[in-house]
Amino acid sequence: MQQLNDLTRLYADYLAQELSGPALNGPADGLYAPQRYLLNLGGKRLRPVLVLLGAQACGGDPRAALPGAHAIELFHNFSLIHDDIMDAAPLRRGQPTVHTQWDTNTAILSGDAMLVLAYQSLAKLPASAVPQALQIFNRTALEVCEGQQWDMEFETQTGISEADYLRMIQYKTSVLLGCALQLGALVAGAGAERSEALYRFGLSLGTSFQIHDDLLDAFGEPGAVGKQVGGDLLAHKKTMLFLRLLEAAPEAVQPWLQPGVDPEAKVQALCALLEQSGVRASVEAERAKHFADALVALDEAGLEDSALRAFAQALWERKF
Amino acid sequence: MQQLNDLTRLYADYLAQELSGPALNGPADGLYAPQRYLLNLGGKRLRPVLVLLGAQACGGDPRAALPGAHAIELFHNFSLIHDDIMDAAPLRRGQPTVHTQWDTNTAILSGDAMLVLAYQSLAKLPASAVPQALQIFNRTALEVCEGQQWDMEFETQTGISEADYLRMIQYKTSVLLGCALQLGALVAGAGAERSEALYRFGLSLGTSFQIHDDLLDAFGEPGAVGKQVGGDLLAHKKTMLFLRLLEAAPEAVQPWLQPGVDPEAKVQALCALLEQSGVRASVEAERAKHFADALVALDEAGLEDSALRAFAQALWERKF
Repeated sequence: MQQLNDLTRLYADYLAQELSGPALNGPADGLYAPQRYLLNLGGKRLRPVLVLLGAQACGGDPRAALPGAHAIELFHNFSLIHDDIMDAAPLRRGQPTVHTQWDTNTAILSGDAMLVLAYQSLAKLPASAVPQALQIFNRTALEVCEGQQWDMEFETQTGISEADYLRMIQYKTSVLLGCALQLGALVAGAGAERSEALYRFGLSLGTSFQIHDDLLDAFGEPGAVGKQVGGDLLAHKKTMLFLRLLEAAPEAVQPWLQPGVDPEAKVQALCALLEQSGVRASVEAERAKHFADALVALDEAGLEDSALRAFAQALWERKF
Repeated sequence: MQQLNDLTRLYADYLAQELSGPALNGPADGLYAPQRYLLNLGGKRLRPVLVLLGAQACGGDPRAALPGAHAIELFHNFSLIHDDIMDAAPLRRGQPTVHTQWDTNTAILSGDAMLVLAYQSLAKLPASAVPQALQIFNRTALEVCEGQQWDMEFETQTGISEADYLRMIQYKTSVLLGCALQLGALVAGAGAERSEALYRFGLSLGTSFQIHDDLLDAFGEPGAVGKQVGGDLLAHKKTMLFLRLLEAAPEAVQPWLQPGVDPEAKVQALCALLEQSGVRASVEAERAKHFADALVALDEAGLEDSALRAFAQALWERKF
């Protein structure tokens, strides 16, 4: 865990420098203040640390990968600003979202500028790495947009399959973890085979991570999760839990999906049904399966490094 | 003009190919249909043609610059989608704007994906040109965002100076023309001095172009301009015309700025005041000054090519 803590600190110091540097303090401060606000709200910094871990695991200097780590963190935060507008979300990390704290126009434009700053950070990587880094980053950024598009479309569509759900979370969440690792590997000069194994590690880890998120939404401890437990269930969000429950216990579920049901009773009843029907256990097994896939990919990367394993383990055990 | 027509056709063919190719027809069609819609509405394609002109003027093959031209056109259209949301504009090129034809969320996300596609197109330039192209493009993209931020802030601010206005239009409009020319010059392997002279040419041409736009809004022929004449005046938009009129004839102007005035009478009266006060003539002179600056910069670039001069002349003479 020491390595992991060191790299987390390394990125935190870099971020602190960037937050007070010229990039995030341009002459049009109305554009940059919302970005600093969101970056200062914290967050787990998982994605930038994965870039550094990827570089270190492949024998490179994690410090050379810092602009790549920052590019990933800026991209992630850009997507949060715009997703929060689209989802009309009032809170992010327990604080008002950017479009709530300012307004929608400010959130659109600040997000746009943040995406450009992500590319500007990417351009600070060693020049030899830039063209390939740009390609990986572009492909991933488009996939994240496509994932968000599907996520929005799912809200009004019926007949969403579990394969649809998995594809959506892979694009919306997992690919950015894979991309982070590949950027690190690229800076370290890793070969294609190792880089692709790390990408698969990130992909499976991300999918396990997102399924975990869905489980925590229903079964997490309210204090630890830091948001309303059961929010996804109340919104009938088509997670794996919900899709499997509809399949496993359609008749028992239906009365709870009608309008006008007491929210607290609804969450309690649906959680009970998830337990009784065995859906919770089957989704837990699915999470474990993707986690195991991740570890297989990590083995295939053939690294001596143990920090990536520690990182994965910490994600596995998280309670929020 | 022949060269200019040839290059316009060259880009039109490339765009047609892209419109039916994989980049703009990805699996999440909800994301790409709005982009195809907007690109198909036409527009003057000034910016992509400037990339090709820049490459040709510097002795390069304009075909090698096509991905750069397309990156600029995608960026421009991305900014239109998002600006139209922020300005709550119902029409673009005489047709419903993207957020009107679809909805705001779709317009936000399609715009985001279009910005990523712009970078993806940039990454298709010859690899040796990519790192520098990325730097020019990033700086410009941020400036365009900053210009839009100022434009929005000006709406509610008082005491905007002419210098503020000029800085705003330089960022919002001119820098993209300069960037287009520099991308072309870069692909052609032009030296720094020539590249910078072309940038200054684009900057001054863009400023002259925007002042022309403001003049056409007030004095253009309704049929040719294709939108409501006097729209900026009705909105009290802080253009050079408006700022100078406030300065030149404050007492005569005030009654027409009160709420409840008949719009047609208002536009007529303000236009008459612009004529009588000499403000129209002084702004025409300002347009001519920036145009002359552009031609000086073009001379400094020391090019044999005449197509850029023809391009500038066509912009000077445009009626819409």
